[in-house]
Amino acid sequence: MGRSQIRLSCQRLSDLAAVLAPALGDRWQESDAQRAAFIGSEGHHSLTMPWAVVQPINADEVQMVVTAAMNRGVPIVPCGARTSLEGNCAASSDAIAVDMTKMNRILTIAPEDLLCAVEPGVTREGLNTELRTTGLFFPVDPGANATIGGMISTRASGTTAVRYGTMRENVLALSVVLPDGRLIRTGTRARKSAAGYDLTHLFTGAEGTLGIVVDATLRLHGVPEVVASGVWPFQSIDGAIQTVIAAMQMGLPVARLELLDDVAVAACNRYSHLELPETPMLFVELHGSPATIDEHRTNLEELGRGNGGRALMLSTDADEQRKLWRARHSALPAARALGPSSVVWTTDVCVPISNLGKAISRTRSMIDRAGLTAPIVGHVGDGNFHVLFVLRPEDEEEWAKARNVNEDMITFALSVGGTCTGEHGIGIGKREALQLEHGDAAVSVMKQIKQALDPKGIMNPGKIFI
Amino acid sequence: MGRSQIRLSCQRLSDLAAVLAPALGDRWQESDAQRAAFIGSEGHHSLTMPWAVVQPINADEVQMVVTAAMNRGVPIVPCGARTSLEGNCAASSDAIAVDMTKMNRILTIAPEDLLCAVEPGVTREGLNTELRTTGLFFPVDPGANATIGGMISTRASGTTAVRYGTMRENVLALSVVLPDGRLIRTGTRARKSAAGYDLTHLFTGAEGTLGIVVDATLRLHGVPEVVASGVWPFQSIDGAIQTVIAAMQMGLPVARLELLDDVAVAACNRYSHLELPETPMLFVELHGSPATIDEHRTNLEELGRGNGGRALMLSTDADEQRKLWRARHSALPAARALGPSSVVWTTDVCVPISNLGKAISRTRSMIDRAGLTAPIVGHVGDGNFHVLFVLRPEDEEEWAKARNVNEDMITFALSVGGTCTGEHGIGIGKREALQLEHGDAAVSVMKQIKQALDPKGIMNPGKIFI
Repeated sequence: MGRSQIRLSCQRLSDLAAVLAPALGDRWQESDAQRAAFIGSEGHHSLTMPWAVVQPINADEVQMVVTAAMNRGVPIVPCGARTSLEGNCAASSDAIAVDMTKMNRILTIAPEDLLCAVEPGVTREGLNTELRTTGLFFPVDPGANATIGGMISTRASGTTAVRYGTMRENVLALSVVLPDGRLIRTGTRARKSAAGYDLTHLFTGAEGTLGIVVDATLRLHGVPEVVASGVWPFQSIDGAIQTVIAAMQMGLPVARLELLDDVAVAACNRYSHLELPETPMLFVELHGSPATIDEHRTNLEELGRGNGGRALMLSTDADEQRKLWRARHSALPAARALGPSSVVWTTDVCVPISNLGKAISRTRSMIDRAGLTAPIVGHVGDGNFHVLFVLRPEDEEEWAKARNVNEDMITFALSVGGTCTGEHGIGIGKREALQLEHGDAAVSVMKQIKQALDPKGIMNPGKIFI
Repeated sequence: MGRSQIRLSCQRLSDLAAVLAPALGDRWQESDAQRAAFIGSEGHHSLTMPWAVVQPINADEVQMVVTAAMNRGVPIVPCGARTSLEGNCAASSDAIAVDMTKMNRILTIAPEDLLCAVEPGVTREGLNTELRTTGLFFPVDPGANATIGGMISTRASGTTAVRYGTMRENVLALSVVLPDGRLIRTGTRARKSAAGYDLTHLFTGAEGTLGIVVDATLRLHGVPEVVASGVWPFQSIDGAIQTVIAAMQMGLPVARLELLDDVAVAACNRYSHLELPETPMLFVELHGSPATIDEHRTNLEELGRGNGGRALMLSTDADEQRKLWRARHSALPAARALGPSSVVWTTDVCVPISNLGKAISRTRSMIDRAGLTAPIVGHVGDGNFHVLFVLRPEDEEEWAKARNVNEDMITFALSVGGTCTGEHGIGIGKREALQLEHGDAAVSVMKQIKQALDPKGIMNPGKIFI
């Protein structure tokens, strides 16, 4: 930024402060300590402090903030729990971070229609706690206790997507404050609609670049009669994957089907104090009636037998289940603990299921040949897997090797018709991959939409597009 | 249109003919007989002949046609089987109809990835015939033997959406020729993706106003081990609906759950030579293993018992099933047969399931009070129902009464958070309702997107927006 630009930028920001600080009181924050809290994320990108942080408590305030920022050309970076992995809410020194976590009310629970409406700062765990007495739950589970707004914006999925779908399938309607300050409502409370352009899906996965979600209507699902979960060790990773592929091709309605390679199992054992055999394994969960669970279990075991599967040890004990899934959800800190003072770079791709074996085995051998430490875990029922590179912050050679593996994962995924990210989004980390995946023409359509709705480019700039 | 405008329009059209006629040979059609074939639809709107019809056979030709039309500002109306109901592909005398039915190749069937890729002119029945030997099927079933391209464009659903989702859930990727002639590809063959804006869902349901779909990648599903279907008579329509509501709230995975009121049953009996008891009833289908089907049937029967349900007569005989669903799919001609030389106006709304009873009973009594003939049928598991007004073409009073009922259906649906159309789309018939449903701000966002991608407004003009 040149000196005159900086002066202009400072002028804009102090103008903005003059409007917003009195209106928001202590929810306008510009001290170093307050701003520094907004650097963090679960990702590996080095992020910048925003110029200020605002914490709106309702849609009116979001409209006020957005309008004031838009009038002065000040960039806005909406954020939630900041658990995203690709720098999706990375700030810049001339931007204001809009922290949505104070908008965390559950607005409606309508069990009779299997839906609820929430503000974007509600977390998925918070929502499910609130739902406990209704016999319903919100299934989408990316592991981290993300906010619903963040999950909408990254089109999150996670362990249960194989059965219940991702955010794409579970968001019915949104209210969004647009970059020009207008408030719109997309979608309805009906299960389906053919009325006009599908704006709900346009904003789901837009990573806050088209507007700020201020409330969301979500589909809920009945808590199953029985939940049975457990671990299923395999002799080889390929055997585990072949079993997954067969199960998906059979259409078995498994509720969770997670792969951990031996490195990931070892990391989990150490971090979560488990004593799992350190071989590749599947974490499995079945939902249903006792009879259907028996049926699906029998089918799974039959598939596993030909593929080197050992016993499938399912339990219906809630404590054991919690322990299991807590261990799976702790894959990221468990990976961090593998290298003292290391940084973990988590990447993901998603491929058509028939190519999953090839994709993972190719990645595993590249990692091994490069001498990297990197557990592989995955929502493999979806064809989606993650590599957690455990890297020394200063070791440039190691980072270069990881970049190399990441690039190969993406190139291979695209070559078989897959995608450069199944659930983390593009953020700042995968902008080139987006271009490779969709091609210039499709990306230019995305940019035309962005330009139409945000001509000044103030809304979460620098994300998704190069 | 003023005289000078007409002259300008004629000039444009003859310019276009000079380019396209030599290139397309007999697939450029401008005789009265050829153009007249493109007036028809299953809807009640009086349509206009297009100025010419083109029948492209590949994406290159679609690009050529669109580019040539765009350069001359000639409107384009893409169409498939023309089974849509809201004038979604109504032409105008200065437009060319782009008949996509000659692009009807199945491009890929990948059973290992549960997907296929097809050209837009493939019909759903044609596709399922082709899939017969694979153990897979494409579930979305709007009744009519629509083309896949048309089903994408109206975001169609139908009898099986309650279990398998609508086109929204079953389209993975598209290739689209944009209004400026560019070809883009949206989506991938992976089950999910978080890479950039969800263009696939933007074009799904856009009714050809943003571009022409030239191929589509679709999700396939395994043919269930057992299919059991049959009729389930109820003492009252309310009892049938209460049973549906309870089944949905329990999360019973019913594959089809169709309501026919007594008027609809009588019409089906007459038209399809059945002998069903002329009371309200559900047409039910269950998919699964013998054990799960037994379980779901037992659950259903239990729900029905408290609501005046008689015996649920399920059969696994394929011939009987075909007969049953053929009768259900013939609801439209059956309604037409109720009034000699009558026109049938089919409308649909969709409401949150808890309001379904109120919505239908209110509509039924309005119909009866108005003295109209109008069977009610519905994909009630989704909260979606249809009224088939049987009207004398010249009886203005009757049409006014029908308009009145239609307006009330929409007003009520919107008042309970529903939508003005569950699956027919907006076309020319529900443009005002779109505005009521989404409000000015959201509709203006749709228009901004339309304007960004189609600044000349040549792509299926006059649809969706007033």
